[in-house]
Amino acid sequence: MNSIFSDRITDVPKSFIREILKIAVDPSVISFAGGLPNRELFPVEEIKQAAIRVLEEYGREALQYSKTEGHQELREYLSQRYKDKHRLDLGVENILITNGSQQGLDLVGKILLNRTDDVVIEEPGYLGAIQAFSVYRATFNPVPVSEEGMDIGRLQTIMSAKSPKLIYAVPNFQNPSGISYSEANRQAVAELVRDSNTLLIEDDPYGDLRFEGVEKTSFKKLIPDNTVLLGSFSKTIVPSFRLGWIAAPDRIMEKLIIAKQAADLHTNNFAQCVIHRYITDNDFDRHISKIISVYGSQRNAMIESIRQYFPPGIGHTSPEGGMFLWVTLPEHVSSMKLFEKAIIDKVAFVPGHPFYIDRREVNTLRLNYSCVDEETINIGINRLGQAIREQLAE
Amino acid sequence: MNSIFSDRITDVPKSFIREILKIAVDPSVISFAGGLPNRELFPVEEIKQAAIRVLEEYGREALQYSKTEGHQELREYLSQRYKDKHRLDLGVENILITNGSQQGLDLVGKILLNRTDDVVIEEPGYLGAIQAFSVYRATFNPVPVSEEGMDIGRLQTIMSAKSPKLIYAVPNFQNPSGISYSEANRQAVAELVRDSNTLLIEDDPYGDLRFEGVEKTSFKKLIPDNTVLLGSFSKTIVPSFRLGWIAAPDRIMEKLIIAKQAADLHTNNFAQCVIHRYITDNDFDRHISKIISVYGSQRNAMIESIRQYFPPGIGHTSPEGGMFLWVTLPEHVSSMKLFEKAIIDKVAFVPGHPFYIDRREVNTLRLNYSCVDEETINIGINRLGQAIREQLAE
Repeated sequence: MNSIFSDRITDVPKSFIREILKIAVDPSVISFAGGLPNRELFPVEEIKQAAIRVLEEYGREALQYSKTEGHQELREYLSQRYKDKHRLDLGVENILITNGSQQGLDLVGKILLNRTDDVVIEEPGYLGAIQAFSVYRATFNPVPVSEEGMDIGRLQTIMSAKSPKLIYAVPNFQNPSGISYSEANRQAVAELVRDSNTLLIEDDPYGDLRFEGVEKTSFKKLIPDNTVLLGSFSKTIVPSFRLGWIAAPDRIMEKLIIAKQAADLHTNNFAQCVIHRYITDNDFDRHISKIISVYGSQRNAMIESIRQYFPPGIGHTSPEGGMFLWVTLPEHVSSMKLFEKAIIDKVAFVPGHPFYIDRREVNTLRLNYSCVDEETINIGINRLGQAIREQLAE
Repeated sequence: MNSIFSDRITDVPKSFIREILKIAVDPSVISFAGGLPNRELFPVEEIKQAAIRVLEEYGREALQYSKTEGHQELREYLSQRYKDKHRLDLGVENILITNGSQQGLDLVGKILLNRTDDVVIEEPGYLGAIQAFSVYRATFNPVPVSEEGMDIGRLQTIMSAKSPKLIYAVPNFQNPSGISYSEANRQAVAELVRDSNTLLIEDDPYGDLRFEGVEKTSFKKLIPDNTVLLGSFSKTIVPSFRLGWIAAPDRIMEKLIIAKQAADLHTNNFAQCVIHRYITDNDFDRHISKIISVYGSQRNAMIESIRQYFPPGIGHTSPEGGMFLWVTLPEHVSSMKLFEKAIIDKVAFVPGHPFYIDRREVNTLRLNYSCVDEETINIGINRLGQAIREQLAE
């Protein structure tokens, strides 16, 4: 009976992380496994006031069918904000509102990928992107990322051998590793892509959440004609609204709008109006700085606890922003086996293997620090350190 | 440069109706061209109260990431409502919340259609479905619909020659024609589909909006294992929330959830909570009966005006519900030419050709009566009658 399905859907990997999260739901488990923003920071009261104002002032319009491209004022706001904050010139007509960045990935895949087209992905990389492009039966070409950014030698080899259709990059505080591309690395990647037919997807859900260091140049600035920039309010305001956007060159935008219309006509217009009202009536940057302050302190607490409780020889990244930190165990130490031990000790994380293509055993793991307070981080990392020591002693 | 795009996106037709609607936006034009629900009937105040309650009672949860399948209480409500109102047994686990029915079409197409797979569509039929399935490069097999329903002879021929993957049907108050399938016609269609590998998509956005006649048996009741039922709150509460659902057999549901996750993780959870709150705190059926009363009166006004002002020899459907009515001009009279004449006389409609595959000139047209009050309908149909007389005299 399976033969009734399309070839494309049989290729899509299930989310291993969803399975992990089911285990981690036990309240006695300290979980670093999630990927959620901290709900204590949601501006609930401000959202309520914004919703009331929208409904009282232009409720009927906000509740009616609307434009496929998105709420005009919200697109104008985004265009202006890129100019003011990032010296980036993005036309209002080059911004399409989507159901979160995930839909951006789906739409870009849909309009660009034929079966077996080559796509460059980061390794380790974001599982949601792999899922989205799997639907269109892409051939994945992993390029390792380090604290510097993409492995330029490897990228160069792929670019000359295959001229890939897409490169998928999360240059700021990457999920899962927390790394950011250096300025030199961005220049080198841009050099390889410029004047090619390859399109680079710059996925930037965490860019606003910088605790330290200085902002780096966006690919959209370096190679505007070859870059599709994805943004999102999920990490800076609220995730449940599913509000993201794509900024793309004209030729891409035209097809994206057709694909968006066929996919769901348009994104929830009421949600767009409420977010626009929220941003207009409140100090958005002050709200973001609150998130930064909390996540930054929690990152510091996690790094201090790691130094205190982990045995020597364990590597970790030191993210300048975002929500995740990446741990590298000694070679040949399985993070999946560690997970099984750790869960008994009531601490959870995501083993590294789902972030690679076709790997079953790796010595890496992802820790999330956005949802756990400093004291609990200390206790949890202590438990995890114990579990690592036990495993190393075996 | 066009070569960078996927084959699938080049096949998708643009929406001609969007172009028409741009012309009809002139406020001196009486427009029967739209396909929108009447915004005067939106329960704005009740939605506001529901939004406030959700945010005050469980705001942080409603604003967080959520389950791909949808808000549990909303799915339970739908399952119960189908049982109570339609004697239909749909398990909660067989209901997936989508971004309107349009996303339901996209997801079903995505998990089922390989290139050139045969799809049966109604003729005339809903353009949004044609768009959604075009993305997956289906081969369309139009089957004429009349006041009885589908042309059974034609369907039988296609079923035996091609065993199509999908049949797309809007059996209640179809868009564009307003027709409904008779009980006998449903039985005959079901007989052809039962025990085949064909899946029937029963798209039912208007089913609740019945002015007269009695409810007919759902395909989901007749052939449950072969039916995917699509529903929506767009026509009964508000469209901008983009809230619809798919009810599907287990084997289909499993793949739909994977596809939904890859497409956008989940539907706006806040919107789902607000609609559930609205339905729980208010008399939903009373609200629906208000819509029925207004649309029913407007349909009556339109039919009376047609009888009064149209010359003899013009056919029209008499919908028992929904938002649309279908006019058939004498043979060889072009509705597109009539449109050009009518727009000068300040009245607009949608010519019939976009509702057919590959037709440029037809003698049919769609009239919408949901958004125009009775007096304006009288004036508009008078103008349209004049335009028809002038065209017939040429």
